[in-house]
Amino acid sequence: MERRDFLTKGSLGVAAAAATTAVGSHLASPAIAAGKKKWIAVSAFGKAGLLGQAFEEFAKFVASASEGRLTIKVYHAGELVKPFEAIDAVQTGTAQMGFGAPYYWAGKSDAISFVAAMPYGLTAQEQNAWCYYGGGIEVADKTAYKPLGLKFLPCGNTGNQMGGWYAKEVNTVADLEGLKFRMPGIGGEILKTFGVNVVLLPGAEVLPALTSGAIDGTEWIGPAADLGKGLFKVVQNYYYPGWHEPATILDGFLDLKEWESLDDSLKAIVTQGAAALNFFVLSKFQAVNNDALQKLMKEHKVTLRPYSDELLKAIGERATEVIPTLAKRSPEATELYNHIVGFRRTMNDWSGYSERAFLEARGAADFKEV
Amino acid sequence: MERRDFLTKGSLGVAAAAATTAVGSHLASPAIAAGKKKWIAVSAFGKAGLLGQAFEEFAKFVASASEGRLTIKVYHAGELVKPFEAIDAVQTGTAQMGFGAPYYWAGKSDAISFVAAMPYGLTAQEQNAWCYYGGGIEVADKTAYKPLGLKFLPCGNTGNQMGGWYAKEVNTVADLEGLKFRMPGIGGEILKTFGVNVVLLPGAEVLPALTSGAIDGTEWIGPAADLGKGLFKVVQNYYYPGWHEPATILDGFLDLKEWESLDDSLKAIVTQGAAALNFFVLSKFQAVNNDALQKLMKEHKVTLRPYSDELLKAIGERATEVIPTLAKRSPEATELYNHIVGFRRTMNDWSGYSERAFLEARGAADFKEV
Repeated sequence: MERRDFLTKGSLGVAAAAATTAVGSHLASPAIAAGKKKWIAVSAFGKAGLLGQAFEEFAKFVASASEGRLTIKVYHAGELVKPFEAIDAVQTGTAQMGFGAPYYWAGKSDAISFVAAMPYGLTAQEQNAWCYYGGGIEVADKTAYKPLGLKFLPCGNTGNQMGGWYAKEVNTVADLEGLKFRMPGIGGEILKTFGVNVVLLPGAEVLPALTSGAIDGTEWIGPAADLGKGLFKVVQNYYYPGWHEPATILDGFLDLKEWESLDDSLKAIVTQGAAALNFFVLSKFQAVNNDALQKLMKEHKVTLRPYSDELLKAIGERATEVIPTLAKRSPEATELYNHIVGFRRTMNDWSGYSERAFLEARGAADFKEV
Repeated sequence: MERRDFLTKGSLGVAAAAATTAVGSHLASPAIAAGKKKWIAVSAFGKAGLLGQAFEEFAKFVASASEGRLTIKVYHAGELVKPFEAIDAVQTGTAQMGFGAPYYWAGKSDAISFVAAMPYGLTAQEQNAWCYYGGGIEVADKTAYKPLGLKFLPCGNTGNQMGGWYAKEVNTVADLEGLKFRMPGIGGEILKTFGVNVVLLPGAEVLPALTSGAIDGTEWIGPAADLGKGLFKVVQNYYYPGWHEPATILDGFLDLKEWESLDDSLKAIVTQGAAALNFFVLSKFQAVNNDALQKLMKEHKVTLRPYSDELLKAIGERATEVIPTLAKRSPEATELYNHIVGFRRTMNDWSGYSERAFLEARGAADFKEV
């Protein structure tokens, strides 16, 4: 459980708010009446947010496309089980599908956190190339999900996150020493080695802790989620980029036997519906982050600050020491880490010549409406 | 027709090779037998390539998900009509769906090329945010597709293209003067203003023209397509980034009445299937470009060269003069251009703080397999 606490990242936050105890006992097992399958799906995210809405759209699509041959009843965070118990619900047969973030299930697998994100790792576009055409889904299934009796389908991506909120500027490695900073997960493990007092806090306690000065700063998610959380009311130094989560895959996980029992038509509907969900979530995060960023800068006078070259270089080098130790904890973790690292090495070239070079050149053209 | 020639871009090339005359006369109209709909789809791309395969997968998905309620018979480039006649086939009712690139239909609409790509415009990730959550599909339908009796669905994206192949280095604006260079579309219009002798050539004539010295260089697509075309055998200076096509949307277009006649279940299947197709094509281009780039650099000793700051700045500034004149040709083109420009302005901020800043920082970590 220690490892789970250490790697489980509550920063998608929406999950933590509405936790209740499990009330699964009144539920019937999945019914197959007149050839119709009924699934229960449990989500680690709240109903009201972008992710809750998107997951409901997915369930609606499956029912509509299949003309009711497969219907999925969605229970959002806390409605049936606690957010972080979604995986147990699927493993015990209470539900047939779950939705969350892979590092939520770090207590179950040494490998699974690598599916979500790796500091200084892959961008969202690269993760999707890896998942669908780089053997990513296969190796994630082999090393992380199949051993848990599950089938993995990528069901969303946050895209690049922001680097976090700081009461005071941080420019040098010396500025990190003694800093009280909230950053769960692998990123926090790296910061600890610089003398940062890494604090783990549930989502609901972050703003109070920041207000009281119990912490000097926190990473959260990205502009849209951060705006809603009101962090700008307390601290105004907003750092970029999110080196600790260049992009975070959200996972759909299915009871492996249920998955295998689907006919080809239903498999196609679930697979393509999940891919569309993945794509829509990423696209929506980009669109809403953009709007929120404008608001943070223009209405709330937040100061965007780049992490200094000194910090990005020192943290990046340290990442190459800390992360391999996590990868060595099991053969499965090693295989998955190596697979990602190999893909990343070459993709670093291509993205450098394409996305990066283009984004650096684009500012030369300042188009005006006509 | 002049405008069509000038804006239609043959650079996806696969289309041009297999053109034949239209042989649509033997085809029956779409049948609705026993509640089953049968569509004919015409593609502007060849059967063998990545796009031909992906479009067949889409048709297979629709048939499987709908359990045969809607089947789509795919005709690749030249199998039923010439590649660039796909839109006529849908408009005349020979086919119910088409697949191509929006700038192929520039002869039909002053606005439609802006849907595909704009020099110094949006990246693929931004285009998808624009399409699905920025009002992009709606404004494209309003200004470009609905006036042609069509419904637009994004069905693919090339991602960032490469800047092109040059016999000799080009470093300064003076180096452009008198250069014989193949670049169709808006990019070519911009280069003309620098004294470039912009040459338009069908795909099949590019390699011979480069070999004979009839042209000094050509843009093509990206590493995977360029490797297959063998351009490295003749010239070795491979420039980046593809400022002229930061990403190119491929379009699915449906007969508007056919689209509206679908029930909700089939609409859901076609919409989500098209979104998955869009997503898979982009992801696959990234994965295969990466592999091909490694091969070009390591096996074929191609030299990758960045466009100089001088060139990127001068061309970018010129783009802000040339493109608005194209946007003023009709109220529809103006509305679409303005919509994209507004979205781009703010997205430029967010992508700068996220993707760009992260890609610039990432090199600090050089992970090794364990």
